[in-house]
Amino acid sequence: MLQFTKSSISEMSKVFRLNLINSCTGYKSANLIGTKSPGGISNVAVFSSVTHLGSNPPLLGFVIRPTTVPRNTYENIKKTGVFTVNHINSSQIKDAHHSSAKYATDISEFDKTNLQEEYLDGFFAPFVKNSNIKMACEFTNEYHIKENDTLLFVASIESVYVADELIQEDGWLNLDKANTVAINGLDGYTKPTLLDRFKYARPDQKIQSFFENDT
Amino acid sequence: MLQFTKSSISEMSKVFRLNLINSCTGYKSANLIGTKSPGGISNVAVFSSVTHLGSNPPLLGFVIRPTTVPRNTYENIKKTGVFTVNHINSSQIKDAHHSSAKYATDISEFDKTNLQEEYLDGFFAPFVKNSNIKMACEFTNEYHIKENDTLLFVASIESVYVADELIQEDGWLNLDKANTVAINGLDGYTKPTLLDRFKYARPDQKIQSFFENDT
Repeated sequence: MLQFTKSSISEMSKVFRLNLINSCTGYKSANLIGTKSPGGISNVAVFSSVTHLGSNPPLLGFVIRPTTVPRNTYENIKKTGVFTVNHINSSQIKDAHHSSAKYATDISEFDKTNLQEEYLDGFFAPFVKNSNIKMACEFTNEYHIKENDTLLFVASIESVYVADELIQEDGWLNLDKANTVAINGLDGYTKPTLLDRFKYARPDQKIQSFFENDT
Repeated sequence: MLQFTKSSISEMSKVFRLNLINSCTGYKSANLIGTKSPGGISNVAVFSSVTHLGSNPPLLGFVIRPTTVPRNTYENIKKTGVFTVNHINSSQIKDAHHSSAKYATDISEFDKTNLQEEYLDGFFAPFVKNSNIKMACEFTNEYHIKENDTLLFVASIESVYVADELIQEDGWLNLDKANTVAINGLDGYTKPTLLDRFKYARPDQKIQSFFENDT
């Protein structure tokens, strides 16, 4: 095995370090965050840090660096309080990656990519039309991560939209069927295939698949 | 499309809500966190919230609820300041899921599963032997998420270990080759396959694959 120590990491070229450290934590979620400025300019940008924070109340978080790329996302959320989270599916990966380009504030990425905006149930922020799972979110709070001057944005999930065939009887969404992708590093897009789903683990009991019959 | 509003989410059965809200944010990283108590009892537990926070300095975060399942992880990190993060690969998914069972504090999950502990370069916390990518981490800080009383643990990456064949010339780790899995919801384990890797996106330029020749 290769070992990279903290001092060798600090001496790497910037690109090598970015690639290594962005891929060593494992797969990331792949979402498009949709926002709109108070003046009506919509924005959409790829985020790989959206993370589940809790179910009751339904909460998610994501990390943002206010001074770098997704500046419009940051400003629109701070000004309007709302945004959408839209799963990237395998047919959208080129356009999703394109949304990370630094377009000027007065340009909507919806006009520069094949991603289409749609508005649902009067929510102010735009959703992404072909995403199979999407959420309307309301900003609740930001936490300053002092170690590297980033922000953890926390938001409540106000609505979840899912294509009918994706939801199982027990509420679980089959992301494989949704063609949702996962991100590897900064720029690798992957398509996961379901291996198995397991029942709740209890001490000293064999792990059982959901798809096995109880005998 | 089905819509679940905030009020319908609050009225769902607990299990349905847990499954829906845990899967609607997309794929999650799949890691085993290894710790050891000051008294020498090792612990390993599956975590799906490990997230990249920054590259320079190399930082990661994960979410923990001190009062519920991974209590030993919480206490060991608070007492010793160190832990390891180990990618779950496709051959380990049953054992990884088993590590989420509530064993008593004096029992090591390494003794109850087929996961094997190993110690590298004098680091106090145990690594997981067959993981292809693993990290030694030092706790730096915790942030209290007041919305739901969880904690974001932030840690510096002190060392990264990777199997030789996984690293590309530019530092990117091929997680597909590593057989690293991604988690869908609370209990679904998936194996991602690389679709493509894209070059840095610039305004008004076509997105190019890393695997295309420049022409």
